[in-house]
Amino acid sequence: MALKQRQLARRVIGVARRSETIPQAIELGAIDEGGLDPLAAVSEADLVILATPVLQMAGLLRAIAPALPAGCIISDAGSSKADITSVADSLGLGEFVGGHPMAGSEKKGVDYARADLFVGATYFLTPTVHTDGDAVSRVAQLVQGLGALPVVLSPERHDRIVAVTSHLPHLLAASLMKLILNETTRDPLTGKGMATGLRDVTRTTSGDVEMWRDVYVSNRGRLLEALESFGAVCAEVRALLEKGEASAIAEWLAGAKRFREEVYGSQPSASGPPEGQQDRPRRTSR
Amino acid sequence: MALKQRQLARRVIGVARRSETIPQAIELGAIDEGGLDPLAAVSEADLVILATPVLQMAGLLRAIAPALPAGCIISDAGSSKADITSVADSLGLGEFVGGHPMAGSEKKGVDYARADLFVGATYFLTPTVHTDGDAVSRVAQLVQGLGALPVVLSPERHDRIVAVTSHLPHLLAASLMKLILNETTRDPLTGKGMATGLRDVTRTTSGDVEMWRDVYVSNRGRLLEALESFGAVCAEVRALLEKGEASAIAEWLAGAKRFREEVYGSQPSASGPPEGQQDRPRRTSR
Repeated sequence: MALKQRQLARRVIGVARRSETIPQAIELGAIDEGGLDPLAAVSEADLVILATPVLQMAGLLRAIAPALPAGCIISDAGSSKADITSVADSLGLGEFVGGHPMAGSEKKGVDYARADLFVGATYFLTPTVHTDGDAVSRVAQLVQGLGALPVVLSPERHDRIVAVTSHLPHLLAASLMKLILNETTRDPLTGKGMATGLRDVTRTTSGDVEMWRDVYVSNRGRLLEALESFGAVCAEVRALLEKGEASAIAEWLAGAKRFREEVYGSQPSASGPPEGQQDRPRRTSR
Repeated sequence: MALKQRQLARRVIGVARRSETIPQAIELGAIDEGGLDPLAAVSEADLVILATPVLQMAGLLRAIAPALPAGCIISDAGSSKADITSVADSLGLGEFVGGHPMAGSEKKGVDYARADLFVGATYFLTPTVHTDGDAVSRVAQLVQGLGALPVVLSPERHDRIVAVTSHLPHLLAASLMKLILNETTRDPLTGKGMATGLRDVTRTTSGDVEMWRDVYVSNRGRLLEALESFGAVCAEVRALLEKGEASAIAEWLAGAKRFREEVYGSQPSASGPPEGQQDRPRRTSR
């Protein structure tokens, strides 16, 4: 949709798993035409972007590789990069440029397509030593055309970063839901204590199971390392709680708050005011 | 503000720490009059509600106790209840009814006051064996008048529940920010991996440090227990990751997703579409 609206592609061909998706995507202006057969779709392409759950990508890449026209650039939108880039390298696909837009939501499918999704977002690109430099710079230009910020780094470095900033947060939110589910069995009033703060904390948990399963499996080494580092931070705060020194706890909390506000600003509540309250003026006299 | 708008109180007197707050609160329609002196404010009250950070409540309650008119009901809005209710009991304040509205945001101060904050929210009330039954039922009626759902339970049971549903989620979000801050020192590109999912996961971290410090300190026993239970859930998912069985991981994820959707429904993204996109129709053909 962004490629079309920004006139970055003359013709966009979509490949879906279900035929119903094709007319929906055409109606939304996301694609010009579409079908269910990847091999047919790529046969005249200048650029192919894979956007399946990550564990399906290697097989898909192997399947389409023989049908790709000479010089065709290939990229993907998967959340882990070491596996797919090594498959591309093993297939000798020098024009494969791994990509990962840091944008999206827990919602799935063409119904939630948005042409402005990438505006202002980081878009990781993960070339290897075997990747063609010209392909990298062309994909980087395209990413800029979408309004995103291309950030080039190695697949391994990428996977380490997103394990901490994206995959671990998901795992913690899901673990929290599991814990509260256990507690609900133990004390049925537990559910009454679930408010809007928790709703936002666990929002990503509503994401697609298949997508996240593949992320967990494909990046599990890094995710396990991130979980271990997280355990060390928890041990720190556990020690603070055991001592019960208010000033040390306040300092710890202030550090977390300061860093979050550095990164995200002190934005209004993510969940926002309820319906009909959006326009009430806020005083800014503080 | 809710008491005034719903005409549940003839006259509301506000007590603030800073004199600037009083005219702001009057202008917003939250109070009729106000001042800085709690003793003067409570001298003719039918109902007193304490709403300071929890560690200040015991001292405040001791200070105002001699000035309270006979039959005056006292409640509070603190996030932990065992400490304050035992102080009230020790002072012989049978009209003290501990309260905790499960509503609010990470924002602080009268600027963020909202008359509809309590609508649909759980409002915990935590009487003890020493609490006057009539006081409990009057506070419960008031809470219903605010549009909230009064849920009566023991202070200890309350503290155990909110440790899991509110305090632990805050601690995990803050620990996550601490971990990412550490990682940012190690790899400066880490910040590029921080997207909207993480922003929502860590929103509560921007809450008031003093308020949260007091919550951590006052409920630290329960919070430590919750953290330990959380560690056990993390150990489960760690074992799944180590085995790397996709189907077991998918089942674990599906359980978390199912429970979240049971509780919160599959609501639209908490962060919502960006400005100007709110009204775009969504297909519902799925």
